[in-house]
Amino acid sequence: MKFIVRAGNADDCRDIERMIRELAVYEKMPDQVKISHRELERDGFGSNPYYQCLIAEVPEEQKSKDGHTKVGYALFFYTYSTWKGRVVFIEDLYVMPDYRGKGIGKALMATVAKVGKEKQCMRLQLSVLDWNKSSLDFYLAKGAEDLTAKEGWHFIRFSGEALDSLAQEAP
Amino acid sequence: MKFIVRAGNADDCRDIERMIRELAVYEKMPDQVKISHRELERDGFGSNPYYQCLIAEVPEEQKSKDGHTKVGYALFFYTYSTWKGRVVFIEDLYVMPDYRGKGIGKALMATVAKVGKEKQCMRLQLSVLDWNKSSLDFYLAKGAEDLTAKEGWHFIRFSGEALDSLAQEAP
Repeated sequence: MKFIVRAGNADDCRDIERMIRELAVYEKMPDQVKISHRELERDGFGSNPYYQCLIAEVPEEQKSKDGHTKVGYALFFYTYSTWKGRVVFIEDLYVMPDYRGKGIGKALMATVAKVGKEKQCMRLQLSVLDWNKSSLDFYLAKGAEDLTAKEGWHFIRFSGEALDSLAQEAP
Repeated sequence: MKFIVRAGNADDCRDIERMIRELAVYEKMPDQVKISHRELERDGFGSNPYYQCLIAEVPEEQKSKDGHTKVGYALFFYTYSTWKGRVVFIEDLYVMPDYRGKGIGKALMATVAKVGKEKQCMRLQLSVLDWNKSSLDFYLAKGAEDLTAKEGWHFIRFSGEALDSLAQEAP
């Protein structure tokens, strides 16, 4: 199957929103998506972008049964390790079900790695749900480390009222 | 004890490096620190900053026995949730041992929350080691959720040869 991987642009935001929703269904949390293409456009393609995006696209003759040619995406940003320096973090990596097993996911991830290396990143990180064994095994087979299993790192989140209360305690 | 919380600047990088090393000792991984004040200056205070920093400072008369007045720091950056939008992420939160229990850590964290809210962040996130019960309990008491325990999120990292190999697979 032919496909290209290219940088996303503002015109991709409706397709990115569609695929974000498809990914949330796969992750069994479809009600959690509160974002729309409008915020995606503002936050990714304004003067101060909060993320970057790659799009996987197939030729018109290989479009999906719903008529889509944008069949996968990787959304990423830069974080920072105070031990090692720059880190590229993949927030989402998604390929539509009918297009899996053809190297598109690997091409997206490898391109993020390449972009990150060009920015002198020492690490590529991401997070995965523990029941998602196929993804976890894929990453481990590629040489990744599971830092939660190995070192005991847990994700902690403040949101809603907890975040409001915390902000109000600022001196 | 009197203290102020203020935005960090390039002149703070030697003290930030010192405290990064102190924190790594506390986290039982002192050999992991490969960064110096030079990279901290380049990456935090150039034209395209990879992180932001807050410094907690005490008056001269309360300086440490080694003569330090910069006694704590919070290092943070912005990430992005494709479900909720902007997120502020605290990478490091540290207060020197003799200055703990005086509200400095809370003031640093609350100020990051305030700055994040001003940037329309919907979440404040951080990671914590599972054996660090005192920090974990502090966050949970403030209303945070442990997403690793609750939903099963694991941290995955590529570095070194695994990252090089991945980047070389880019189409």
